[in-house]
Amino acid sequence: MSAQTPIRFGILGCAEIARKVSRAITVAQNATLYAVGSRSIDKATAFAKANNFPANAKIYGSYDAVLDDPDVDAVYVPLPTSLHVKWAVLAAQKKKHILLEKPVALNVAEFDMIAEACESGGVQIMDGTMWMHHPRTAKMSEFLSDPNRFGQLRSIHTVFTFPSDPDFLKNDIRVNPDLDAHGALGDTGWYCIRGILWVSNFELPKTVIALRGPIFNEVGVILSCGASLHWEDGKVATFHCSFLSSLTMEITAVGTKGTLHVDGFVIPHQEKEACFSFASETGFDEFVTSWVPPPSQHIVTTDLPQEVLMVREFSRLVGTIKNGSKPEKKWPTLSRKTQIVLDAVKASIDKGFEPIDIKY
Amino acid sequence: MSAQTPIRFGILGCAEIARKVSRAITVAQNATLYAVGSRSIDKATAFAKANNFPANAKIYGSYDAVLDDPDVDAVYVPLPTSLHVKWAVLAAQKKKHILLEKPVALNVAEFDMIAEACESGGVQIMDGTMWMHHPRTAKMSEFLSDPNRFGQLRSIHTVFTFPSDPDFLKNDIRVNPDLDAHGALGDTGWYCIRGILWVSNFELPKTVIALRGPIFNEVGVILSCGASLHWEDGKVATFHCSFLSSLTMEITAVGTKGTLHVDGFVIPHQEKEACFSFASETGFDEFVTSWVPPPSQHIVTTDLPQEVLMVREFSRLVGTIKNGSKPEKKWPTLSRKTQIVLDAVKASIDKGFEPIDIKY
Repeated sequence: MSAQTPIRFGILGCAEIARKVSRAITVAQNATLYAVGSRSIDKATAFAKANNFPANAKIYGSYDAVLDDPDVDAVYVPLPTSLHVKWAVLAAQKKKHILLEKPVALNVAEFDMIAEACESGGVQIMDGTMWMHHPRTAKMSEFLSDPNRFGQLRSIHTVFTFPSDPDFLKNDIRVNPDLDAHGALGDTGWYCIRGILWVSNFELPKTVIALRGPIFNEVGVILSCGASLHWEDGKVATFHCSFLSSLTMEITAVGTKGTLHVDGFVIPHQEKEACFSFASETGFDEFVTSWVPPPSQHIVTTDLPQEVLMVREFSRLVGTIKNGSKPEKKWPTLSRKTQIVLDAVKASIDKGFEPIDIKY
Repeated sequence: MSAQTPIRFGILGCAEIARKVSRAITVAQNATLYAVGSRSIDKATAFAKANNFPANAKIYGSYDAVLDDPDVDAVYVPLPTSLHVKWAVLAAQKKKHILLEKPVALNVAEFDMIAEACESGGVQIMDGTMWMHHPRTAKMSEFLSDPNRFGQLRSIHTVFTFPSDPDFLKNDIRVNPDLDAHGALGDTGWYCIRGILWVSNFELPKTVIALRGPIFNEVGVILSCGASLHWEDGKVATFHCSFLSSLTMEITAVGTKGTLHVDGFVIPHQEKEACFSFASETGFDEFVTSWVPPPSQHIVTTDLPQEVLMVREFSRLVGTIKNGSKPEKKWPTLSRKTQIVLDAVKASIDKGFEPIDIKY
């Protein structure tokens, strides 16, 4: 780590996920919890206390107050998706760097407003897709990008589902059409889509088609859906996302020479070690009764959990910008591509499962 | 094993897969290699020699001669799919029990002719889907049928792909439209579909839709394709099958309470032990950084490889029929359902990816 002053974070709102990210900011040596704002000062006070904010942290009764604090370097925005465009644009205008929860916006037009505000303000934006920062992800990328071990990508399947209790299905912001209008597609589906794009080296598909049979709640929010993605060169991907099934987080990527499989791709089974398997140029024994060689299992350990690595990387980028560098464009580019595909899945559902051509 | 006289097998043709099944017949204590027929007597002689046929085995220069041998109890039919209806119907008429390679026919109408001939002839028919007979399959079924551990099935994904060399792509019967007209769909796709039906307790889907972007060879045979399957109750399945990708054989089945994942479902990584994993009622720790409990890994060992268990079960059924029992209808029922879905995928491809309603 560089010896720079830690990046001072302000947190907008007291969402459940903000507990995990607050812990990560505490652990990351180049970041510090500096302020929290909530529409309720009591909630903000309780949140700061419960999440080990420093004694001198600023507790505010509004989001505006956090943005108006000149000592806040960066904001973490875990607000409902429908509020992202307002608060992220405002944050960028106030020159705050932004760590933005996913889905980054209700649609790509909104995200473009955010990204443009960040560009004008000269601030970094990164979305909160934590697994991108796990060292396992980099290790798996080595395999996927190896023409000898993986070859040319042919197909991908991703799944992210978790079960919901009646309270979640009634009260969670993720099933409220005014807050997180995309439901499971915006939440677990975001990761499925990001997983597919990550495997395909972020080459956008040509066409997206929602699978039939999405399940909605009584106010029209998606609780379960899926889609197929199609590229010009014949690559195909499918995914399934849901709030109604057992916890599952899988990627299977099949190339001409190798196959990658990872369980727990969004959140590894263990905090400090993560597994995946791959098979490369495998075949059968003489009587086709066993694999030669069998797929190999790999474990990647990490001293710091992935959310700390995310905060550390974000803060490092903010530090370089403070020292005169430009914001890193990779991160908003990945956010935007994920949002483009998410929008296409939604459009396909809305249009009765018609193919949607991706234009970009 | 019962002390019955071993079932005497005649083999029609000298296909590559017949080597593996010949070995299985040799190993199974209730079965014996009795005859082989080929259009070339030289090929039949060489095959018998290479595959440890007993010295007194009958070597025939035609398939008819095998069927006309009154001492042949059962035939194994690894002929190209387009020949199945002719030779399986003839075998049934000659009262030979039939172990039939997959796909069982070019379409369900042809299979119904075979099944009716078997019923009239009072003979057993079973298709050569070996993994159905592995003890791992029974073990996984226990999990899938457990309402407390797996709950209600919500989604399934299966993949079976293998890479082909130029010789295969030019000369293999599986890419010849006059022999195995369904290509990868009839071969690896058969297993993907069977895997989906097995997970869904053989409940046929309501609708089948091929995924766009199937790849064909220059004479129109499928080299790669996929489909989604949809049930009335909202269950959804997808699969991908191909001759153009790295060896991959996976099933992921997601229920409301549990998730099953199996690699190498068609052929286990090792001949005598096979693995799978499942997660049941799992969730996260406080900070959502690990799974509690994590998925569990399971290994099922078997003294006899799955193809021997298949031959043993088939021969056991033939033995009971010789002793007055009726043929077991389960096996042709499973073959028929698999063929119905295969036909629907093909029809959807032929009709430009239209949804095909399953009627049965």
